Amino acid sequence: MKNFIILTITIIVSFQLLAQKEDSLMLRKIYDEVLVQGECYENLRSLCKDVGNRISGSKNAEKAVIWGEKLLQSYQFDTVFKQEVMVPRWVRGEKEKCTLVNGTNNIPLNTIALGGSISTNGIISANIIEVKSFDELEALNSEEVKGKIVFYNVPMEPKHIRTFNAYGGCYPYRSKGPSEAAKKGATATILRSLSLKLDNAPHTGTMSYEEGVNKIPCCAIGTLDAELLSKQLITNNNIKIELEMNCKTLDDVLSYNVIGQINGKTNPDKYIIVGGHLDSWDIGEGAHDDGAGIVHSIEVLRTLKKINYTPNNSLRVILYMNEENGNRGGEKYAELAKNNSEYHIAALESDRGGFVPRGFSMDGTPSQLEKLKSWKPLFIPYDIHYFVKGYGGVDISPLKNGQTSLIGLVPDSQRYFDFHHAPTDVFENVHKRELEMGAATMTSLIYLIDKYGFE
Amino acid sequence: MKNFIILTITIIVSFQLLAQKEDSLMLRKIYDEVLVQGECYENLRSLCKDVGNRISGSKNAEKAVIWGEKLLQSYQFDTVFKQEVMVPRWVRGEKEKCTLVNGTNNIPLNTIALGGSISTNGIISANIIEVKSFDELEALNSEEVKGKIVFYNVPMEPKHIRTFNAYGGCYPYRSKGPSEAAKKGATATILRSLSLKLDNAPHTGTMSYEEGVNKIPCCAIGTLDAELLSKQLITNNNIKIELEMNCKTLDDVLSYNVIGQINGKTNPDKYIIVGGHLDSWDIGEGAHDDGAGIVHSIEVLRTLKKINYTPNNSLRVILYMNEENGNRGGEKYAELAKNNSEYHIAALESDRGGFVPRGFSMDGTPSQLEKLKSWKPLFIPYDIHYFVKGYGGVDISPLKNGQTSLIGLVPDSQRYFDFHHAPTDVFENVHKRELEMGAATMTSLIYLIDKYGFE
Repeated sequence: MKNFIILTITIIVSFQLLAQKEDSLMLRKIYDEVLVQGECYENLRSLCKDVGNRISGSKNAEKAVIWGEKLLQSYQFDTVFKQEVMVPRWVRGEKEKCTLVNGTNNIPLNTIALGGSISTNGIISANIIEVKSFDELEALNSEEVKGKIVFYNVPMEPKHIRTFNAYGGCYPYRSKGPSEAAKKGATATILRSLSLKLDNAPHTGTMSYEEGVNKIPCCAIGTLDAELLSKQLITNNNIKIELEMNCKTLDDVLSYNVIGQINGKTNPDKYIIVGGHLDSWDIGEGAHDDGAGIVHSIEVLRTLKKINYTPNNSLRVILYMNEENGNRGGEKYAELAKNNSEYHIAALESDRGGFVPRGFSMDGTPSQLEKLKSWKPLFIPYDIHYFVKGYGGVDISPLKNGQTSLIGLVPDSQRYFDFHHAPTDVFENVHKRELEMGAATMTSLIYLIDKYGFE
Repeated sequence: MKNFIILTITIIVSFQLLAQKEDSLMLRKIYDEVLVQGECYENLRSLCKDVGNRISGSKNAEKAVIWGEKLLQSYQFDTVFKQEVMVPRWVRGEKEKCTLVNGTNNIPLNTIALGGSISTNGIISANIIEVKSFDELEALNSEEVKGKIVFYNVPMEPKHIRTFNAYGGCYPYRSKGPSEAAKKGATATILRSLSLKLDNAPHTGTMSYEEGVNKIPCCAIGTLDAELLSKQLITNNNIKIELEMNCKTLDDVLSYNVIGQINGKTNPDKYIIVGGHLDSWDIGEGAHDDGAGIVHSIEVLRTLKKINYTPNNSLRVILYMNEENGNRGGEKYAELAKNNSEYHIAALESDRGGFVPRGFSMDGTPSQLEKLKSWKPLFIPYDIHYFVKGYGGVDISPLKNGQTSLIGLVPDSQRYFDFHHAPTDVFENVHKRELEMGAATMTSLIYLIDKYGFE
């Protein structure tokens, strides 16, 4: 009996060691393929330069759908298909104008309408009132705010090591700042751009009007212009701003999620999905946000096919439409998956830029998280060290059902908000190897999930 | 007795927890100071823009010494002093010329002399022979090489995750390639720049001639030009190169290491030192290499003083002269330390760029490495995860004595060789927060070493 137990343990340990060795070799193969023959960087160049920025409902978004479908077809996955989805259409109109009128001195400020803003209907000329928080706004009486432009000058907190936490702290000023200011009688709002960098690139992003509250136009200016405006207000609180924007919201438009699939051998009806969002804001090139996530995700399936890996489960790459101002694509995908009773093991999303990867954050059960963490040793040679409970991603969030694990790639975040939603988010600001490291890391995780599952 | 043991254990554990709490608060204080009120980024701007590049023996290196001394004095450390050191002086001369002569087509190639190269003495016009390794060169007979220019076209290996390993693989072609080619009768060498990026920035770096071997001129061209030249050689191996360079080595020059010191309270005669090298190559601005290390190291002492930390041991920041082509500063420092019987607990160097930090590599005893690793949990909130046995740094290497632990900061290496020794190594390519994260990480380590030592 004792010998039998020893034999059994020896066999089990040997198999485990063998599996570990096999996995370790497979990860090496994956990283080699992506770092030496990877196609994600050139795919990103094409998306940025041949398509360009691509807000939902635009001509460029249509082009991006065709671009994605063609690219997926070129890789000869088992299936490539689209899902119809109605998306909002917000149009910026002609170039925005924001001028600081300070007696004799007129200073033009780089400005950008927030996504969803209404037009100014001609030129708004009004005094400015600066606030550093909602508490400060709250403390003002309506007479002080009425007819003025509220200037939210709230810098992102540099103490946060992970810059998404700093973003989270300022996000409410963009999303609900206009309605909060309108409640006090403001005529418009100007936001200090959500960036840790001091420059004059204005950063847009989505906002929404609270029902029943007067809608007022809202825009953002660069961090340096915000500092300038703030300084001028110290010596002269009679400064005026002239603001002109022609943005508007049109009728919803038909668009698509684009999907490529490799069929699973053992469980073709179980899915592991990986994706990013195909739409971007209507400035720059949507390179980090989220061109990187798109080409990362495509590279996962390309790589696994290229190294002749036959998955146990069906793998899908999903190019979601309309993350930026609606998440209609993410919602549509989840709705159809539910209607079709598709069992999803895991959903992986890349939507935090094409920077060097650090690891993954998972919205899943404790046992799924333990499983994820158990793979950490395999990633150490690649300097992937971060495996934590956390958020998955916007596009995959509608899939949350207590069983499917939602996982987000976590790249290093130090540079992300330099480019996020800004004219500087262009291909040239994405680094080839950093991008590739992200794709290889995602591919490795998908391989491990496919092999071991999350049970 | 049992109660006594329990009490003792409880007291020990409580003290440990208290110390851990204290350390954790101190690290938070350090990162806060550097990320919010840090001065390293503006110091780097000044070094790059007010001084510029600063090869040993040059006017700019003199300016850099004055810059460093003034800056250290401005921080009012207990002592600021200089150490005399004689340094080599190699001068590039006028702009280099390298022309690909291909029948009717003359293509100018961006070129740069390797540091230490002799002049071409007029124009060298010769055929090219391309080799992909020393083995290939070895396999050629001298008749095939004689009178020709050997073109070392050896790309850095993209499979390496840590790019310094890829650099290590190609480094010998730069350092001893010229002498190896001369042994076969070559008239000059051209090196494919040591970079993983495809562009036309040529990268210089030091080389040395083997004694007793004919000295021949040597230069580097950008990676794209290397690809171009290689392609042209496939169809036409009668291509010529015209090469003209006026570089020369002059007499040694007096220069300095610049040192700032905060005296230790408990052990003023024990030293913990931190440094980088003040010299750079004579192109670009020496921003990552090693302006970053200089301002990192200064920031360590500035921060500890600013937060009113009184060190147990004496802390020194050392701006070494002449790392790039001689390491005379590092050797001089070690020589004087030995002559003065100075006990050095640890030496920390930053000379791998100003990118986001990953951790440290240590050249020390196993017990020192264990101690280093025991601090890892304190660094986890800052995404510092890499604590390994490895190289310290060139400047501190002469201090190696089996007792002083030599430690190198390890930043992320993906982008380093895009800029290394190239005209692109300028201030604009250093990211403020990435630089600051490095400085805060180094400061934290110096604090821990000062508090706990390496015994």
